[in-house]
Amino acid sequence: MQISAADIARLVKGELIGEGQVLISGFSGIKEAKKNELTFLGNPKYEPLLLDTQAGVTLVPRQITCPGKTLIRVDNPSLSFTQVVNYLLKDAPDYKPRGIHPTAVIATGAKLGPNVAVGAHTVIEDGAMVAEGCVIYAGCYVGHETHLGKNCLIYPQVVLREKVSLGERVIIHSGTVIGSDGFGYVTVDGKHMKIPQVGTVLIENDVEIGANVTIDRARFDRTIIGEGTKIDNLVQIAHNVIIGKHCLVVAQSGIAGSTKLGDHVILAAQTGLVGHIEIGNGAVVGAQSGVSHSIKAGEQVFGYPAYPIKDALRNNAHIQRLDKYVETIKDLKKRIEELEKK
Amino acid sequence: MQISAADIARLVKGELIGEGQVLISGFSGIKEAKKNELTFLGNPKYEPLLLDTQAGVTLVPRQITCPGKTLIRVDNPSLSFTQVVNYLLKDAPDYKPRGIHPTAVIATGAKLGPNVAVGAHTVIEDGAMVAEGCVIYAGCYVGHETHLGKNCLIYPQVVLREKVSLGERVIIHSGTVIGSDGFGYVTVDGKHMKIPQVGTVLIENDVEIGANVTIDRARFDRTIIGEGTKIDNLVQIAHNVIIGKHCLVVAQSGIAGSTKLGDHVILAAQTGLVGHIEIGNGAVVGAQSGVSHSIKAGEQVFGYPAYPIKDALRNNAHIQRLDKYVETIKDLKKRIEELEKK
Amino acid sequence: MQISAADIARLVKGELIGEGQVLISGFSGIKEAKKNELTFLGNPKYEPLLLDTQAGVTLVPRQITCPGKTLIRVDNPSLSFTQVVNYLLKDAPDYKPRGIHPTAVIATGAKLGPNVAVGAHTVIEDGAMVAEGCVIYAGCYVGHETHLGKNCLIYPQVVLREKVSLGERVIIHSGTVIGSDGFGYVTVDGKHMKIPQVGTVLIENDVEIGANVTIDRARFDRTIIGEGTKIDNLVQIAHNVIIGKHCLVVAQSGIAGSTKLGDHVILAAQTGLVGHIEIGNGAVVGAQSGVSHSIKAGEQVFGYPAYPIKDALRNNAHIQRLDKYVETIKDLKKRIEELEKK
Repeated sequence: MQISAADIARLVKGELIGEGQVLISGFSGIKEAKKNELTFLGNPKYEPLLLDTQAGVTLVPRQITCPGKTLIRVDNPSLSFTQVVNYLLKDAPDYKPRGIHPTAVIATGAKLGPNVAVGAHTVIEDGAMVAEGCVIYAGCYVGHETHLGKNCLIYPQVVLREKVSLGERVIIHSGTVIGSDGFGYVTVDGKHMKIPQVGTVLIENDVEIGANVTIDRARFDRTIIGEGTKIDNLVQIAHNVIIGKHCLVVAQSGIAGSTKLGDHVILAAQTGLVGHIEIGNGAVVGAQSGVSHSIKAGEQVFGYPAYPIKDALRNNAHIQRLDKYVETIKDLKKRIEELEKK
Repeated sequence: MQISAADIARLVKGELIGEGQVLISGFSGIKEAKKNELTFLGNPKYEPLLLDTQAGVTLVPRQITCPGKTLIRVDNPSLSFTQVVNYLLKDAPDYKPRGIHPTAVIATGAKLGPNVAVGAHTVIEDGAMVAEGCVIYAGCYVGHETHLGKNCLIYPQVVLREKVSLGERVIIHSGTVIGSDGFGYVTVDGKHMKIPQVGTVLIENDVEIGANVTIDRARFDRTIIGEGTKIDNLVQIAHNVIIGKHCLVVAQSGIAGSTKLGDHVILAAQTGLVGHIEIGNGAVVGAQSGVSHSIKAGEQVFGYPAYPIKDALRNNAHIQRLDKYVETIKDLKKRIEELEKK
Repeated sequence: MQISAADIARLVKGELIGEGQVLISGFSGIKEAKKNELTFLGNPKYEPLLLDTQAGVTLVPRQITCPGKTLIRVDNPSLSFTQVVNYLLKDAPDYKPRGIHPTAVIATGAKLGPNVAVGAHTVIEDGAMVAEGCVIYAGCYVGHETHLGKNCLIYPQVVLREKVSLGERVIIHSGTVIGSDGFGYVTVDGKHMKIPQVGTVLIENDVEIGANVTIDRARFDRTIIGEGTKIDNLVQIAHNVIIGKHCLVVAQSGIAGSTKLGDHVILAAQTGLVGHIEIGNGAVVGAQSGVSHSIKAGEQVFGYPAYPIKDALRNNAHIQRLDKYVETIKDLKKRIEELEKK
């Protein structure tokens, strides 16, 4: 299938600069794109790449010009690109399972809505409810009394333990475990006694969770992942954590028990948050940071331990200059000794 | 089901302050608890929360008083709370599988003790032995000649590779892999040749292992997790590691090959230990620390690289004040120049 | 089965020192080995252990001597040890599945080469191709149009999503997910819109991937793991990452999107690399380092943020001495005040 530059411009409501009859049959990155492919320039700082691209058509921010190239100017090239990709993909092969595979083991007490698909060898336990339009791939486990809202997409080999609740349009990638027991013990005479973890997990609408993530069930109450939040691969969310709406939690980050994130928080990759703290709305934690205290709304922190990014960068600059400072101290000492002799 | 404050006091051998006839039918955190719920105050520093709790009954440390509230004074409120929870849960729904599911694939040479439960689609290979009372959920893999002691609890989609040994009452959460090959290569002419990993893994009695953990089999000999040790989610234990008894290894920590932990060691979250070192009994490693040398018994270390916590905190405090020190150095330099002019 | 010291020397083309008729029936570490076992001394710095070993025969580097012990001198004792282990293991029990298990679900449109083994409950989707000699254990998922080259070894519960390509002799350990969606969103009015991840993953010949690893599919194009590269457990490889040939990526490391590694790169454990940077051939990144900029070929970096190892160690040494420097500054200040009074 093909689409012309003029049709793309119409689709994304953009301003066409160049040849409207160029035909596009694929899409690629700005470096790799070929003449029959669409690409986009997401960030004006990469503008030099535009000169060299072989792409047939490039979606660019409004202010960009590049004579000889066919451009479509839009407000958000990345977003428009996605729009075109989705349009071109609407007839792409769909690999999702359909219907209920005969090897799936579905308890008689489980309730499945209309148009639910369940892949091979998936197990759905008693009391589970899977709403209309959900797709559960092969090899998943849906525990007792776990509920999935409409149109969830669950990739192969996901484990949803008992009494977990998913909102609508939740996406969970392979190998992820939701509702494992929290890490809770009482130490008596040097031995660790298990505290029953009888709470559960609530995942709200439009959350996406990456591969091999672990989200523990609450000790009592609920661990909560707020609406629209996106969680990357290999993230650890401990018991009783509450994450607000539209947050981003990047790969390999970990949040200890009972910590609470506001809305629109960003945790970069490999961050660690201690338990029982609060991270305000819109706060940003830099990669690999270790956060041991609450963070105010809008604050940006960085480092181990994490400090406001301005302080962290300044301290780091000082550390890189320690050698010079030490030289100066030695020099001053010598000069003082000289002065003292006089 | 319900239990009165007086009956709870009797159950936990505590001192009742207030109304013994208050009826409890649930339990919750001190902030969320309602008037028909039991809660507890684990740490005296949170005593102010006691004033505001709506809980019908609160378990508190011996010294605590709060007029108008029904309290039960005990030595260890957290432990007593667990005791009551267990009592109230004794009739709770039990979601464990029972019997052998017809879709489980159990080799004819595998031996299962009495009262063993095996969930749907679980595979148990030849030579495996599963002792009395074990519960293995759906979708697990138990390799050749792997042995499970009595009353183990294995959650969905756990992989126990061949020749792994589990003691009694071991709990393993979903997605965890025990007995994968150690990361061992010999580099010859720039290419990495695999060293066969023909050892195994021994997990002793009463160990609990979280979700998506990886524990590699030894190159030869055994990787060992000692009795009563508890391992949190997403932890990496490399080949030939030996962990002592009653240790706590918190989420996303990693221990490199052949390192040896004593008993009662605590590794906080996201710590990393290099290979071939020894961590003494009762040592504590702070969160995100990087340990590159052996640690004495009882020592507390912190930081990257890790130093005794006193030194690490002092150095960190100095780093936060570097700006002032640099100012002072500049000031001293100026004053010396003044003195030298004279 | 047994092998004599003389036969071992012949097998590894080594120089026998001592009794050629000693019989070996097992192998072990230098500390644990018994008199009927073979061991090796990999690193001359552990030479003192040689005095105490009970091993019947020890493979040692060429220069080593130890009167009274039976030694075989070789160029690379570790490699020679592996050679002997492989020789002794050639008749060891082989736990791999054989043939196609009747519970495997193989789409009619999937193509399997000769001598392919597929374990119980494994699912192979339409359009998948599994070449000659591949062994896929129980509980795996092979997505639509995913291709496996000859003689791959896939352990239980691996997920290969659709359109992934594996070269020949690729080994993948349990719980690993290849081809999950990259973490890509466009934020519009504070909500994160998913960018379709329609690229794929290419794993070249002789790659080995540990347990519970995640490798995301490219946004478009391909995420690539180069020939002979070895990846340890719990590693995260983001979308569009390209890793060169014969690299080592140690446990719990993470590489952000579109970063490119050359050949023979080593990432020690728990390292983090930001996106869109390049790591030159043969570069080495120390454990737990955070790399935020490109690294030249052959460079060794360390720390958070990562600097050339010489600078990082020097700065760290300064940090450990900050207390003394601060004392010196105070002392100098006092002395200057004295001088100023005069």
